Amino acid sequence: MLTVSSAVKKLIAQAQPLVDDRRRAGLESVPVTEALGRAPAVDIVSAIDVPPAANSAMDGYAFCAADAAAGKYNLEISQRIPAGTAPAPLQPGTAARIFTGGEIPAGADTVAMQENCTEAEGWVKTDKKAEAGDNIRARAQDIKAGEVIVKAGTRLRAQELGLLSSVGIARVEVFKPLKVAIFSTGDELVEPGMPLHPGQIYNSNRATLIGLIESLGMVPVDLGVVPDRLAATQHVLKKAAMRGDVIISAGGVSVGEEDYVKTAVEKVGAMAFWKVAIKPGKPLAFGHVENTPFIGLPGNPASVFTTFMVLARPFLMACQGCSEVAARHLKAPAQFAKAGEKRQVYLRGRLTEEGVEIYPNQSSGVLSSACWGDVFVVQKTGEPIEVGDLVDVLPYAL
Amino acid sequence: MLTVSSAVKKLIAQAQPLVDDRRRAGLESVPVTEALGRAPAVDIVSAIDVPPAANSAMDGYAFCAADAAAGKYNLEISQRIPAGTAPAPLQPGTAARIFTGGEIPAGADTVAMQENCTEAEGWVKTDKKAEAGDNIRARAQDIKAGEVIVKAGTRLRAQELGLLSSVGIARVEVFKPLKVAIFSTGDELVEPGMPLHPGQIYNSNRATLIGLIESLGMVPVDLGVVPDRLAATQHVLKKAAMRGDVIISAGGVSVGEEDYVKTAVEKVGAMAFWKVAIKPGKPLAFGHVENTPFIGLPGNPASVFTTFMVLARPFLMACQGCSEVAARHLKAPAQFAKAGEKRQVYLRGRLTEEGVEIYPNQSSGVLSSACWGDVFVVQKTGEPIEVGDLVDVLPYAL
Repeated sequence: MLTVSSAVKKLIAQAQPLVDDRRRAGLESVPVTEALGRAPAVDIVSAIDVPPAANSAMDGYAFCAADAAAGKYNLEISQRIPAGTAPAPLQPGTAARIFTGGEIPAGADTVAMQENCTEAEGWVKTDKKAEAGDNIRARAQDIKAGEVIVKAGTRLRAQELGLLSSVGIARVEVFKPLKVAIFSTGDELVEPGMPLHPGQIYNSNRATLIGLIESLGMVPVDLGVVPDRLAATQHVLKKAAMRGDVIISAGGVSVGEEDYVKTAVEKVGAMAFWKVAIKPGKPLAFGHVENTPFIGLPGNPASVFTTFMVLARPFLMACQGCSEVAARHLKAPAQFAKAGEKRQVYLRGRLTEEGVEIYPNQSSGVLSSACWGDVFVVQKTGEPIEVGDLVDVLPYAL
Repeated sequence: MLTVSSAVKKLIAQAQPLVDDRRRAGLESVPVTEALGRAPAVDIVSAIDVPPAANSAMDGYAFCAADAAAGKYNLEISQRIPAGTAPAPLQPGTAARIFTGGEIPAGADTVAMQENCTEAEGWVKTDKKAEAGDNIRARAQDIKAGEVIVKAGTRLRAQELGLLSSVGIARVEVFKPLKVAIFSTGDELVEPGMPLHPGQIYNSNRATLIGLIESLGMVPVDLGVVPDRLAATQHVLKKAAMRGDVIISAGGVSVGEEDYVKTAVEKVGAMAFWKVAIKPGKPLAFGHVENTPFIGLPGNPASVFTTFMVLARPFLMACQGCSEVAARHLKAPAQFAKAGEKRQVYLRGRLTEEGVEIYPNQSSGVLSSACWGDVFVVQKTGEPIEVGDLVDVLPYAL
């Protein structure tokens, strides 16, 4: 059976062609202020230095340190430089009144804070302790012209929107959001809001998948619930291949005679692999339907959540053009003990002040386990966990 | 000067009235599948058990363990139970063919996996090792009827959307998104896309604030850049109080004669506190304009990012009705050394395999520091950090 890490590698390798084939068609230009969560298609280079000129970090007085010493720290004020104005070169032997963000005039090398100076009748007694370079923000201290400020495929956060703005960029070319066609299988599923009859359960996977896809900034295309029949499953797969860049299903991937998803994929496309050594979620299926990649998640609610986060998420992010798709791991001391298992286990847990603890019921049917906390604890195949062991932790939000 | 933790406490205390006053007007009902990132106004209770009846965790055969032993592990198959059907009570001394998710019939207490059984001509040789309880998911193992499944004020993630669906809830009453009116001050600011003249810099704070507010699921109301003049600042504050539930500004809160924000707030409202012992970002201002809360962030790009995340975010989330607004801290070993400072320092850093490192240039003017990584390292007032010290880490994303 494939290990989790080989499955992720295989998935990401398969994701590349999709991005390449569709790259040209898959771009759009958006204002930077509307680009949160989007990924640019190429490296973004700054055309300017930031700041574009040295400026004052304080309200105070700008002068040449040598002049100040020579003038016994008493200098005539020859100009006033509020932020946003272009200063004249500083007259030798004088000081300039300057404000935070004000551009340092040519000839000045020092700013003394106003709290440490005394101004009277057009002259200023400067701070004797002020040394050359004090309170000056150097030109290009943040960004140098020609520097790559955002790499291709970086998912833009608020601070990157600010950084792009700081170099004067108003619009950015980004990948269009991926469309992810989803459906659930299972004759037992009833939509929330409808009455529940004996033998039935409510369909939670639809909402979980919609939320997970939206969390990644992608667009879910919801094809609803498909009955446990081969023809219906083939039909929805073809529809999904038309409407989505990627297809994700929940349920119907086990060995049973009521599981039609794998057979249906083989009829209208091809399977690439089936089963991953992950718990929960072993019978994960991957293939293609008419050149559209297909991921079949198992149907149990906690399996859907886990396999999406661990296996589908990196694949979708790679299809989206994101460069960093690997999961981010932390380390934390375990506050629980657990015997090793035959598969790699993704325990639903939560971080505490002291370490990490896990939800008591780790059944694949128990979605509460994923709501209770904020992280997976990754338990490697065959390895027990003892209280105090430093374990791998995978936050849901990173 | 206020410590960071007292400032956060004061801010959250001020946030309560806003929520209470506007609670009734501030709710809306949305489909669960459109509720990602929203917070329900009341505790949500399940009306049903999940699962509503015991069901099979496997494809296999359901029977009574005592009958199987009595019948020498050879039982006639009396019914077939696919998922979604209502089973008849099990005839004593027989087995039922059952599929994953299928409801356990009355009278059965065991499911044997099909891989361990042999079926022929309407009879099944059952797995001798199967014991009572095997492969059965108990009724209510996930949720009990009457249980609170989502507390009021919880920000809904994908898994909570799934959990609400699993108990049959199709719509949820949530707080309306908070409207946050924002403006920047500074005559040196030019909007991206426009030419840059000497003395000027591009305005990054507008995009950073828009992104930060949208990241919280709130709605930015952008009032642009205000010139460094008292009348203009008063005017924009009044407009912001009309259009926003909260006002946030960037810049103009220092002591200088070009800083008009505090004076303007005092003219059209009232200041509550000014200055927090935080670095970067000391001159943070808080007050009200015509009953609308106002937060004045300092103007440097890294100060805007830091004070928003540390001080404005918990306030905004409390105003939004969220119950858990405190920052989530982790611990990680420092991979750097740094002398203590007079204020609590929020160093922009990033997690690595070995611990946490910080960006070399921590100047408040350097926004690159916030883009480089994913966490703040919190350095307590006056405390040096040595390599290997376990330090407080505050992920941007948690």
